[in-house]
Amino acid sequence: MLRKLTILGPGLLGGSIGLAARHRKTAHRVAIWARRPEAAEEALRLGAADEAGADPRKAVAGADLVVLTTPIGAMRALAEQIKPSLEKDCVVTDVGSVKYGIVNDLSHVLAGAARFVGSHPMAGSEQSGIEAARRELFDGAVCIVTPREDTDKAALGIVHDFWKAIGCNVRTLAPQEHDEIVARISHLPHVVAAAVVNVVCSDGAHPLNFVGPGFKDFTRIASGPAEMWTEICLENRQEIARALEALIEALGKTRAALENGDAVELRTMLKRAKHFRDELKFRA
Amino acid sequence: MLRKLTILGPGLLGGSIGLAARHRKTAHRVAIWARRPEAAEEALRLGAADEAGADPRKAVAGADLVVLTTPIGAMRALAEQIKPSLEKDCVVTDVGSVKYGIVNDLSHVLAGAARFVGSHPMAGSEQSGIEAARRELFDGAVCIVTPREDTDKAALGIVHDFWKAIGCNVRTLAPQEHDEIVARISHLPHVVAAAVVNVVCSDGAHPLNFVGPGFKDFTRIASGPAEMWTEICLENRQEIARALEALIEALGKTRAALENGDAVELRTMLKRAKHFRDELKFRA
Repeated sequence: MLRKLTILGPGLLGGSIGLAARHRKTAHRVAIWARRPEAAEEALRLGAADEAGADPRKAVAGADLVVLTTPIGAMRALAEQIKPSLEKDCVVTDVGSVKYGIVNDLSHVLAGAARFVGSHPMAGSEQSGIEAARRELFDGAVCIVTPREDTDKAALGIVHDFWKAIGCNVRTLAPQEHDEIVARISHLPHVVAAAVVNVVCSDGAHPLNFVGPGFKDFTRIASGPAEMWTEICLENRQEIARALEALIEALGKTRAALENGDAVELRTMLKRAKHFRDELKFRA
Repeated sequence: MLRKLTILGPGLLGGSIGLAARHRKTAHRVAIWARRPEAAEEALRLGAADEAGADPRKAVAGADLVVLTTPIGAMRALAEQIKPSLEKDCVVTDVGSVKYGIVNDLSHVLAGAARFVGSHPMAGSEQSGIEAARRELFDGAVCIVTPREDTDKAALGIVHDFWKAIGCNVRTLAPQEHDEIVARISHLPHVVAAAVVNVVCSDGAHPLNFVGPGFKDFTRIASGPAEMWTEICLENRQEIARALEALIEALGKTRAALENGDAVELRTMLKRAKHFRDELKFRA
């Protein structure tokens, strides 16, 4: 059991980590830092922390595990700020959706002060803010930990066990490999769902009067916070652009098959996708 | 209340119509026709019909409403077959996902024998077969009825009221307008979800080990029956190709924005999509 877990940033993920860790007694004490005093109060009110405040240095004092849950763009400066106040054996992780750059930067910033291990719990949703936090958010969710070659093995074990303790299925990928795969399975679907909504509504919202549950499921992610997703897109832009290139090529083939009435090509493409997608039904 | 409702085709939609109509007492008697005797027996066993058999002419005898629930490709021949056995005032409708061609054809085939009104209940799912049928399938689902200018107004009222009685929110569109809108809100998402699954799994199923709930929702429709979707794609190929052309253009712009690190373009595109998608949260 951790002595003290500190969560830096009281959003959907930060709040849910606090709720899950307290519920499952993963730490003796949970502290949350929030930039805004009202957010700190809300974290306490929801039971997401035992203590909450607006001073990040105070929040990390005595912590054996610190989780950065702010937007990626705020993490580097925050790490600099807390560095002098971290315990000697402290382990630091994050929840960023893109790993290569941030893992390198935070490993560098925290070198000599704490042991950093990158994490990406895939449990966000189209919701945001601590109001949407819930303690079951991580139940059965995949969390990818992204060690570098020089990552401390004991620290990796602590981070691995932490995510597992709050309900995640933990997997391991190198940071670059993470960014390639997540570009395809998460960032690509996001920009594509957004693009389809925009095409559907190119003449206004009228077509939304006719949509069924398929469209709603398909486009749900397009309700995600636009600012956060802009940041993610920029952070992983090379990999997403590459995935998009492959998709545009595939869609071009499908378009040609439609124009030519090519039943064989259409059937092959739809069958292949169904074959792979059906696999997901039987996975945890 | 209808005297006799006949459902021609015992799939997910046909079975669910039977279950809903019997549960809500929309008809005194529900008959199902199935090509295979085992399917007819299954329909009876599940309580989707009062009578079931393999002779379509017998099934429609005495019916005041007949619903064609077979694949689109089988409807024309089936309509020819039942034509001599239809009651004088019988109303015939269908459940096809593409309307312009089938509405013209069935109106023509049945002219002088029955009054035809096209319908498209948008309540299919990635499941198929009568085993997946359930009486709540239509609760709150949109059903689009697609009258032509010469469609009998009384027949339109009967079909409208029938879908409403089994739980649908009924809307009206001309057949061509239906095909344009549904290409964008249903057929386009289907081929795009399939294409994304294929891109994700271009080197095998490995990336599926890492997917979260967003990917599952986004790709769920790609599990739909490939044969049925091939038929739908071919039937509405011009409209789907047009929608795909608009999407490919939009994705090309997004790709350029990623390559150029154009935050303004990305933010604008994501915000616009979120604005429209958020509207759906507040609709019935």
